[in-house]
Amino acid sequence: MPEHMGTHIDAPVHTTQGMWKTDQIPIEKLYGPGVIINVKEKVKSNPDYRVTVEDLMMWEKKFGEMPRHAIAIMNSGWSDKYPNKTQIFGSTQHDNASSFHFPSWHVDAVTWLINKRQINAVGVDTPSTDFGQASVSASFPCHTTLGRNNVVGIEYVANLDKVPENGSTIYVPVLKLFDGSGGPARVFATYDDEPNKTNAAAILANPTSLFRFAIYFSMILLCEIGL
Amino acid sequence: MPEHMGTHIDAPVHTTQGMWKTDQIPIEKLYGPGVIINVKEKVKSNPDYRVTVEDLMMWEKKFGEMPRHAIAIMNSGWSDKYPNKTQIFGSTQHDNASSFHFPSWHVDAVTWLINKRQINAVGVDTPSTDFGQASVSASFPCHTTLGRNNVVGIEYVANLDKVPENGSTIYVPVLKLFDGSGGPARVFATYDDEPNKTNAAAILANPTSLFRFAIYFSMILLCEIGL
Repeated sequence: MPEHMGTHIDAPVHTTQGMWKTDQIPIEKLYGPGVIINVKEKVKSNPDYRVTVEDLMMWEKKFGEMPRHAIAIMNSGWSDKYPNKTQIFGSTQHDNASSFHFPSWHVDAVTWLINKRQINAVGVDTPSTDFGQASVSASFPCHTTLGRNNVVGIEYVANLDKVPENGSTIYVPVLKLFDGSGGPARVFATYDDEPNKTNAAAILANPTSLFRFAIYFSMILLCEIGL
Repeated sequence: MPEHMGTHIDAPVHTTQGMWKTDQIPIEKLYGPGVIINVKEKVKSNPDYRVTVEDLMMWEKKFGEMPRHAIAIMNSGWSDKYPNKTQIFGSTQHDNASSFHFPSWHVDAVTWLINKRQINAVGVDTPSTDFGQASVSASFPCHTTLGRNNVVGIEYVANLDKVPENGSTIYVPVLKLFDGSGGPARVFATYDDEPNKTNAAAILANPTSLFRFAIYFSMILLCEIGL
């Protein structure tokens, strides 16, 4: 099984020597508050769309400042195209990368997430954290920026419509492959299905609702129990 | 990469035709309250030890009735022996299964967990959910009982000393292998590092401690976001 297949991560070492290999990534970097950036409308008219800093600002306008150490994932609606290769790559020439058309992140947005919000990982529901047309110039600025900053990339995420844009916790439990440059992960999210019942005021008014309350950010310790 | 290597699961179909394959296991069955059964002392004098119903009773005496849909894992201390094959199998004859000596579950305890506590998964820090000497009679009662009841088995778990015996949540995010009889998983646990601050009385007395509070069992919804 290849390391970069299906839903998988790119370890920072994938682009930048000396950075974390798959088995070296601290497990605390493999989960975090979920930040879903929905660009489905924008992508409809532009398959070469790249998520902008403005898109991130709009998210914050709606939900408040992003939590630190989040997992930010673009929802472009692209996963509806799986497993049709021609649709996924936006091209009938599957061996010609410069013909590819699919959306991803703009390097400015990735840089902002790293510098301003100490992001844990950046993901896409497309084949790459750099958009399809990045191959034309053969420069992959998002990949190299992520790698250089020891930030994990996640590719081929799916089912993002099921996750709230704010308030989930996303887990990226990549297999701990020795010496790996990436690896497959069963990515999943948890969230509260009754968020209206979980604010502090409601709990203080009604002690029984305590047992419906979960602040995921207080799940402070993760502990590996695999080999 | 083989399906049954390193820390991995056995899908119910592994022993019982018609039961869940790896990709068919509902994701809700792949996490749950962690129940760690510590039998390290008993194993020291008996490498053929099998966890008994009495061991489960002792856990409940200490922590109260087990939550439903838990992930119960034996902590025999065996993971200290990784990766020494002779120590893991308790035998120098690695090709002769009937010479193996390592602990696991007794089928009566597994049956009790299924019937009385609706367990989600049963795990071991050894090579098999049946003890080493099961090979002598070539009967693997725990495997078949788990399979017949569509319950997941987990083998080669490690680092169990780091997880509290009660109060964690354990995740078993096995790769979603199509048609699989098992598969590797980056198994991990979450738990509160300040449990004393998280009881209801303390919270009601001090509203700021709300933000340290997590009842993991209220993380009701899991959502797959992989392929």
